[in-house]
Amino acid sequence: VSELSRLSLNQASIPAWNVAQAAEGCARAGVGWIGLWRDRVAETGLETAARQVADAGIRVSSLCRGGWFSTGDPDRRRDDNRRAVEEAARLGAPVLVLVCGPGPGGDLEEGRRRVADGIADLAPLAETSGVRLAVEPLHPMYCADRSVVVTLDQALRLAVDAGHGTGVIVDAYHVWWDPAVWAGIAAAGERILGFHVNDWLDPTPDILNGRGLMGDGVIDLRRLRGAVDEAGYEGPIEVEIFSDEFARRPPDQALARICERYLEHVAAPGGVRR
Amino acid sequence: VSELSRLSLNQASIPAWNVAQAAEGCARAGVGWIGLWRDRVAETGLETAARQVADAGIRVSSLCRGGWFSTGDPDRRRDDNRRAVEEAARLGAPVLVLVCGPGPGGDLEEGRRRVADGIADLAPLAETSGVRLAVEPLHPMYCADRSVVVTLDQALRLAVDAGHGTGVIVDAYHVWWDPAVWAGIAAAGERILGFHVNDWLDPTPDILNGRGLMGDGVIDLRRLRGAVDEAGYEGPIEVEIFSDEFARRPPDQALARICERYLEHVAAPGGVRR
Repeated sequence: VSELSRLSLNQASIPAWNVAQAAEGCARAGVGWIGLWRDRVAETGLETAARQVADAGIRVSSLCRGGWFSTGDPDRRRDDNRRAVEEAARLGAPVLVLVCGPGPGGDLEEGRRRVADGIADLAPLAETSGVRLAVEPLHPMYCADRSVVVTLDQALRLAVDAGHGTGVIVDAYHVWWDPAVWAGIAAAGERILGFHVNDWLDPTPDILNGRGLMGDGVIDLRRLRGAVDEAGYEGPIEVEIFSDEFARRPPDQALARICERYLEHVAAPGGVRR
Repeated sequence: VSELSRLSLNQASIPAWNVAQAAEGCARAGVGWIGLWRDRVAETGLETAARQVADAGIRVSSLCRGGWFSTGDPDRRRDDNRRAVEEAARLGAPVLVLVCGPGPGGDLEEGRRRVADGIADLAPLAETSGVRLAVEPLHPMYCADRSVVVTLDQALRLAVDAGHGTGVIVDAYHVWWDPAVWAGIAAAGERILGFHVNDWLDPTPDILNGRGLMGDGVIDLRRLRGAVDEAGYEGPIEVEIFSDEFARRPPDQALARICERYLEHVAAPGGVRR
């Protein structure tokens, strides 16, 4: 097995590539997985995107993203989430990532209720579609505008309550600061459905698009990798870097850099390093 | 008792004022408390600052800040923290706020160990000096550069372990996102040594100096106020707004605005509103 066998390119890391370009780029670089985004799949067309990924000989690790349960018209939101599950199934994505959304009018408690209800409502369809829902806690600095779910503990409780195979995403950028993350990862165990890597830059250049490449920041990725291994996670490891600066690099060079840093800071050739 | 009786101006909210100007400004506005910063006290001189505040007929609610346990030369840091305790005592500040500092070289665990050791080392002197140390958890977005203490639970554990009257600060901006904050406030009880108010703007204009005036953002200040009341806190309520935009206002007008928003969103005339 190649040391890159578990690496997945989340396509948001290289926005200059469309689905076909990203899939072919991964194939050229020996990266076997891709994390797709619904807006990029939509611009290509669902069937075409599915074929392009298959033709490149790679697999889809996850589809981003369902969720946003607490915003907009509830019926439309529900329909959209059900379409997201179907798209994931059609793309062969084992996991649909849920970014849960902000509180309506800033109301955290109401937002959290709607999120719990929305996941519970969606979970049975996901199970029958062969797709696992993965609740992704976001960093607390996104609590007002993107996600009322801000800790791994909170995401895990939601996943357990929803049942039907619902799990969580452990994204280094979102959880590294949390003193409870180690216990949380152990508690999540088989409910860990994805591990996303990147880095926290100090100083952080931008709240949304200021993430760093692994090794450029302060996150102890080896320790997180070890904890996720210990919890039993054996699936793909997605590199997800939202970065204005990184997005300006030539795509093939950017992916080469991702592979290099993944090998240096995340991959564990010859066994788990702790 | 005036409805403003518990309001304290943290002087970082109006940086255009020196200690004398801030103290006199508070007296003019009927604000009975001030939260001082060591650098502003130092530029005035400790004895002069103490006299200026006393002459204005107001009291010091807290001194900001000790801490930064994990950075720089350990002996100098220790000496500086001991001086901070003595300064607080001289100023009649009942509380020294501790911002605990980042991890050395990004090492969170080592940073957290040094913070625990540093607080434990300082606590006996604080007690004999009549000053209570207050551990302030900062928002997780400051974890890399300012504070490895990022949740109220974590701050409370540190306070309990340190003993000697050590407590915590509940700052709305730093804790509002935390699903565990309500249980944390109740658990903190008499260890709550300060309540800081401000608001989280959506979108946030700046990571460090982008705080909002109460009512301009998404924080449920009434609920936090109710929880802190319920926990038994009866001390001053500091308005602490780090904001480039707010700092540009004419000082007297800025303080009038603080009083207005405090009355509207935080004060509880005629009993606690929940």
